[in-house]
Amino acid sequence: MSRFFSKKYEKLVPYVPGEQPKDNKYIKLNTNESPYPPSKKAIRESLKAAKRLQLYPDPECTYLTSELANLLGVRKDEVLLTNGSDEILNFIFMAFCDEDHPAVFPDITYGFYKVFAQINNVPYEEIPLKDDFTIDISDYIGIGKNIFIANPNAPTGISITLSDIEKIASSNPENIVVIDEAYVDFGGESAVGLINKFDNLIVTQTFSKSRSMAGARLGFGVANSEIIRDLNTIKYSTNPYNINSMTMAAGLGCVKDEDYTQRNCREIIKTRNETVKELEKIGFTCTNSTSNFIFAKHERIDGETIYMQLKSRGILVRHFTGEKIKEYNRITVGTQKQMKALIKTLKTILEVE
Amino acid sequence: MSRFFSKKYEKLVPYVPGEQPKDNKYIKLNTNESPYPPSKKAIRESLKAAKRLQLYPDPECTYLTSELANLLGVRKDEVLLTNGSDEILNFIFMAFCDEDHPAVFPDITYGFYKVFAQINNVPYEEIPLKDDFTIDISDYIGIGKNIFIANPNAPTGISITLSDIEKIASSNPENIVVIDEAYVDFGGESAVGLINKFDNLIVTQTFSKSRSMAGARLGFGVANSEIIRDLNTIKYSTNPYNINSMTMAAGLGCVKDEDYTQRNCREIIKTRNETVKELEKIGFTCTNSTSNFIFAKHERIDGETIYMQLKSRGILVRHFTGEKIKEYNRITVGTQKQMKALIKTLKTILEVE
Repeated sequence: MSRFFSKKYEKLVPYVPGEQPKDNKYIKLNTNESPYPPSKKAIRESLKAAKRLQLYPDPECTYLTSELANLLGVRKDEVLLTNGSDEILNFIFMAFCDEDHPAVFPDITYGFYKVFAQINNVPYEEIPLKDDFTIDISDYIGIGKNIFIANPNAPTGISITLSDIEKIASSNPENIVVIDEAYVDFGGESAVGLINKFDNLIVTQTFSKSRSMAGARLGFGVANSEIIRDLNTIKYSTNPYNINSMTMAAGLGCVKDEDYTQRNCREIIKTRNETVKELEKIGFTCTNSTSNFIFAKHERIDGETIYMQLKSRGILVRHFTGEKIKEYNRITVGTQKQMKALIKTLKTILEVE
Repeated sequence: MSRFFSKKYEKLVPYVPGEQPKDNKYIKLNTNESPYPPSKKAIRESLKAAKRLQLYPDPECTYLTSELANLLGVRKDEVLLTNGSDEILNFIFMAFCDEDHPAVFPDITYGFYKVFAQINNVPYEEIPLKDDFTIDISDYIGIGKNIFIANPNAPTGISITLSDIEKIASSNPENIVVIDEAYVDFGGESAVGLINKFDNLIVTQTFSKSRSMAGARLGFGVANSEIIRDLNTIKYSTNPYNINSMTMAAGLGCVKDEDYTQRNCREIIKTRNETVKELEKIGFTCTNSTSNFIFAKHERIDGETIYMQLKSRGILVRHFTGEKIKEYNRITVGTQKQMKALIKTLKTILEVE
């Protein structure tokens, strides 16, 4: 830390992203990317945009916002696009959380919520999940803090119901309730339809997973127009041109190719369900994942050993060191072929068959 | 403002970007974009990246950072790339400015410094330029605040010397001195070479102007490695994947095509100097611009009228309403052909010849 660094960050611990190996030698099942390439329409549109990069992008993302709003069944002033969903989450912490409006989220969830709270000097509380990794909804009823829930949750993959979300939102009318739906397209139920019922509800999503665009950095928030206006105030006070032209164009191509996205999601769900069955056959316990990853622990071998053994054999999964989850690994659902390779390698490691 | 918006932003006034018309009917000389397309290498590399968008970008921007550091003659741990130079400027305000380390900048300069100060709750002081729009260096000697100077300044285009920068940096050893070189490639002198002499100096630049990549959103900061580490702490606590793969690839293509950039800069400087002469012939006074724009007022017609008249005739320039500069317009240097059209249209408006 230089002598100039503001004292307010003394306790800040930055987020650590999953490994991004620079070579291509791994079967990469560690950062929940899609195994499928982006839509051809997305590629085509981004190339057009690349040819006129000398011009600034449209700071209002007019066309993409309209098309996306159409797809979601909301108004265009109820959507704000950002540089990945990390940006909309940070904007929400900036806009709505402060000393008087602390944040609350599960103790096991997306690790970045805690960092967003810290960097914005927001007090926060982490509520333990139940022993089976499910959220105890009663913990959040009338809690009077700004609530952040990933649905499905990460790294567990477990969902809560829309009726639970309604109970949380209606019992905390003076606080923001954020439902982070990064993984909703793989079997969860989206709360987007509830934004007109609850003016304190914000739903965030991303193009990174189901839309095969992690490299493009495109996320968004959906909420009533007053909240979106506040979030725009933050955007226009930090980075008005937050979305580059190529990403904006790729996003538009992708939205116009919704069938492709839906087909990929169906395929990933099918592969996930088959893989879970195979894992259970060789001694793994898996949570009930409604996401594009599997959260699994083995009856004999500890989580870190499995992670290391897989890595040494060219398969990268994500291992967390937190006490409650260190026996687990989070395994992204890849192609059928990749998952067969995973199962085969695990059998070698476990010395079964 | 929704009832949830944090009270700390009550006085915040967001930045207003220049007009970005969605049709192509204007000769667009209002946002200091390059009139030349991006490097062909940049386009080619970004297309390659678009095809594998399903994967996250490298959060460390390893290759681009190395190549750029080479080009700049610094070490790779002395460079941090960001989502446009607005992001690095905001990171600097976040990291180094607070109640005890207020900011100071000229009263006429890039309008965003004030907004960055406001959103980060940083006290700030605006020091008036001299009547000829130059900076009085003595105002900044030993001022004991974090200093932000655009060099060349915007919207005046006027530069200060490296020897002035040395005096400012050496007389404020306990404060950060930021030299914002967005426009330095059009005749200014870069302070990048001074970062090892002054550990409090940060130089920021952008790919938006001389590198024809405004649409890609790519900026960077250069400073000693301790400062860059602090700025990385901010990045990894807000948006680790802040640069998307296509922009990263385009940046790499561009850096490898430095001759193209230099050629475009020479052409723009030549066109600027010729245009200034033509403007002076028809009654304009221009500041001594070392940037890719001209800051000009007419002896008879007021600034707003000229802006409106040009706009109604299909030429967009930027007009500011601030008291001291409202007689001026900021005119981006376009192609020779565009500038001929500008002069011809101005002659019609002024009824000369």
